[in-house]
Amino acid sequence: MSELLITSASNPRLKGLLSLRRRRTREETGQTLVEGYEEIGLALSAGVRPSSVYVCEELFSPAGRAGSQDIGHQADLLARLRGDRVEVVRLSRAAFEKVSYREGPDGLLAVVDRVGMPLGDLRVDGPRHLSLVSQGVEKPGNLGAMLRTADAAGVDAVIAADPVTDWGNPNVVRSSKGTLFAVPVASATTAQVLDWVREHEITLVVTTPETDLLHTDVDYTGRVAIAVGSEKHGADSVLLEAATHRVRIPMHGKANSLNVAASAAIVLYEAVRQRDAR
Amino acid sequence: MSELLITSASNPRLKGLLSLRRRRTREETGQTLVEGYEEIGLALSAGVRPSSVYVCEELFSPAGRAGSQDIGHQADLLARLRGDRVEVVRLSRAAFEKVSYREGPDGLLAVVDRVGMPLGDLRVDGPRHLSLVSQGVEKPGNLGAMLRTADAAGVDAVIAADPVTDWGNPNVVRSSKGTLFAVPVASATTAQVLDWVREHEITLVVTTPETDLLHTDVDYTGRVAIAVGSEKHGADSVLLEAATHRVRIPMHGKANSLNVAASAAIVLYEAVRQRDAR
Repeated sequence: MSELLITSASNPRLKGLLSLRRRRTREETGQTLVEGYEEIGLALSAGVRPSSVYVCEELFSPAGRAGSQDIGHQADLLARLRGDRVEVVRLSRAAFEKVSYREGPDGLLAVVDRVGMPLGDLRVDGPRHLSLVSQGVEKPGNLGAMLRTADAAGVDAVIAADPVTDWGNPNVVRSSKGTLFAVPVASATTAQVLDWVREHEITLVVTTPETDLLHTDVDYTGRVAIAVGSEKHGADSVLLEAATHRVRIPMHGKANSLNVAASAAIVLYEAVRQRDAR
Repeated sequence: MSELLITSASNPRLKGLLSLRRRRTREETGQTLVEGYEEIGLALSAGVRPSSVYVCEELFSPAGRAGSQDIGHQADLLARLRGDRVEVVRLSRAAFEKVSYREGPDGLLAVVDRVGMPLGDLRVDGPRHLSLVSQGVEKPGNLGAMLRTADAAGVDAVIAADPVTDWGNPNVVRSSKGTLFAVPVASATTAQVLDWVREHEITLVVTTPETDLLHTDVDYTGRVAIAVGSEKHGADSVLLEAATHRVRIPMHGKANSLNVAASAAIVLYEAVRQRDAR
């Protein structure tokens, strides 16, 4: 198979890749970027087929990379992509480093379809549905961290309510370590989320400091959605008023402010504890 | 009181501030930077006295700042610092923006003594000591997030074993939201930490995927240290072998990798759950 080789860092295709860092371009093209062996591998495992993959074999070996002790299996992954007839574009190191968006690039960057489905397409099967709702969360790193935890907790979905950051944001992809492709995700307005919760008779548990009920005093063994609010303002009044249970995480410190991803982890794993004990 | 006013972004004092972003300078001077109203306020509450504070009053008002909806109480904090006879240096906006290390600066930057005590100075009182040990954690953002959670969980100390990042790293200060000053912190080698754990008869609980024991199946109500390993390699064999209990967090997902700060949050709050129930 003849493959394109790009050695000039000013090649227009690279410009196209860089433009995918902009939300508007992602929305227009319906595509986003995934960088790195692990992240792309996880996307493939989840059934994602890249439209193209950009490679720099010089960066495959640890010697070619800065600050990494991993032994690369990038060549295997590349062979698999070629076998699947994914378009492969080879880049010089200078060209790759221009489009890479992480430290210590490992020579693999894929263009994939954006993820995220309409809320109505999320299936709510059986009596044990568990989802995480994040309302207005701003930082891609927090969204990504929540996805990793939500995946590990075995949730059925993560829903962004009134999202400030889109699921295709490359920093969400990166900080999610590719779990973005493993967990069903959706975006919707808060009103739509509340309709969906009512329609499926889901117990809605919202975290807030303004309550006496501890997060450990709620039953999470049925159909449950756990909701957290934005970094700055927490859950809004509409979400709080619609909650089946408003719960607080006990605070024994001086600052008493948990990071939103830590809050989500604590409540999700209380749900896991109760569910695993059954 | 006559106060210095710096309007030139090339003023040598600003260079001194910038140099505090380097670990070597922090170690040589014993100082570090704290930026922002909340973070400095928390440091003051914890008894920290800045050696100097750099202010840009133009940035105090929301109108002067990008991307913030907070209403500033910076003027009150500044008055308090002046009352405490802390040296105040006024900066032009251009000068302040040169030394600011965060997005949306609010016009306050303080120079404070680095925190961190020798492990031997950490007090272990009573039968309910709880501490968090982070071994070889690299990312300042993870250390900062762990400090916030550890503060909220009411730990007695956070100990960096074989630290890659020093406690004075401004990104640790920032991501800790100032809790760095609220929680006693120490740094030591892993061997020293293990000696300390033995000396004080502390139950050492280490997280690892390589065990059948769940993190919820351990008793955290006595003297306990919870230890997590580095982002890439987890806890090393020395730490694992010295553990009283090796525990795993249940994984129900596809990627099955939790962020280290999420792992710490989950285990710390299992300890809180057990302790609060007593």
